[in-house]
Amino acid sequence: MSTDAQMLELAIKQAEIGLAEGGIPIGAVLAVGDEVLGVGHNRRVQMGSAIRHGETDALEEAGRQSAKTYAKATMYTTLSPCHMCTGAILLYGIKRVVIAENTTFMGAEDLLRDNGVELVHMESEHCVQMMTDFIAANPELWNEDIGE
Amino acid sequence: MSTDAQMLELAIKQAEIGLAEGGIPIGAVLAVGDEVLGVGHNRRVQMGSAIRHGETDALEEAGRQSAKTYAKATMYTTLSPCHMCTGAILLYGIKRVVIAENTTFMGAEDLLRDNGVELVHMESEHCVQMMTDFIAANPELWNEDIGE
Repeated sequence: MSTDAQMLELAIKQAEIGLAEGGIPIGAVLAVGDEVLGVGHNRRVQMGSAIRHGETDALEEAGRQSAKTYAKATMYTTLSPCHMCTGAILLYGIKRVVIAENTTFMGAEDLLRDNGVELVHMESEHCVQMMTDFIAANPELWNEDIGE
Repeated sequence: MSTDAQMLELAIKQAEIGLAEGGIPIGAVLAVGDEVLGVGHNRRVQMGSAIRHGETDALEEAGRQSAKTYAKATMYTTLSPCHMCTGAILLYGIKRVVIAENTTFMGAEDLLRDNGVELVHMESEHCVQMMTDFIAANPELWNEDIGE
């Protein structure tokens, strides 16, 4: 299995942990090569949080890192990054984002691309199904999470 | 004193609390009219946080709010919002941002403006001085906070 596929598996595991906790099933991993800096998942329900999305939770778990480290890092996420997570990726100069799916939600991918971030799409049917089922069962919670 | 001036005073107090804690002196307030939803300040040092900037800390303290509430809210901040905080403002559809100063740091104001967010600049000499002094004394910490 490639490093990208392995890291995305870790992110998917995070999403599944979130789901098992009663939360929104989105997970992320921040890694440099095969070294994991932080893993995270959406914690809106679990922590009553407005800012802990998958990606920002992984950044928070990774803690304070140098610009040099961020510049070598890849953000793996089970879902196309929203405006907030996109902004966090741009703030820290993360240059590569691997996205499991953007079928159930299209984030600010144009903004990432326009700022020179490399996007890799993995087209995970499993993640599409997980989010489709979740959104169908929890439309209000999902809308709240994307500010709608 | 106008509501804007009062709320900005509150944000400045938050920045000063952060400074007294040994942190980066940036504060924010999320409010609807004269009702404060949340106050916050940068907690990179205090919590070892990568995602608690002034604005995101105020959003976190405000907790889970409806899109209707965010649409009526103003974000008050002592410093021009970085990409991450800009993204959070866009995610939640906050339509108005009052900024104490953008002299010591220019955030993603164009992106806010391009997305229809009203920006109000208060040109606070006090905040310019506070940040100028802080950056001069802590250049590495400041660079870390803005991803440089």
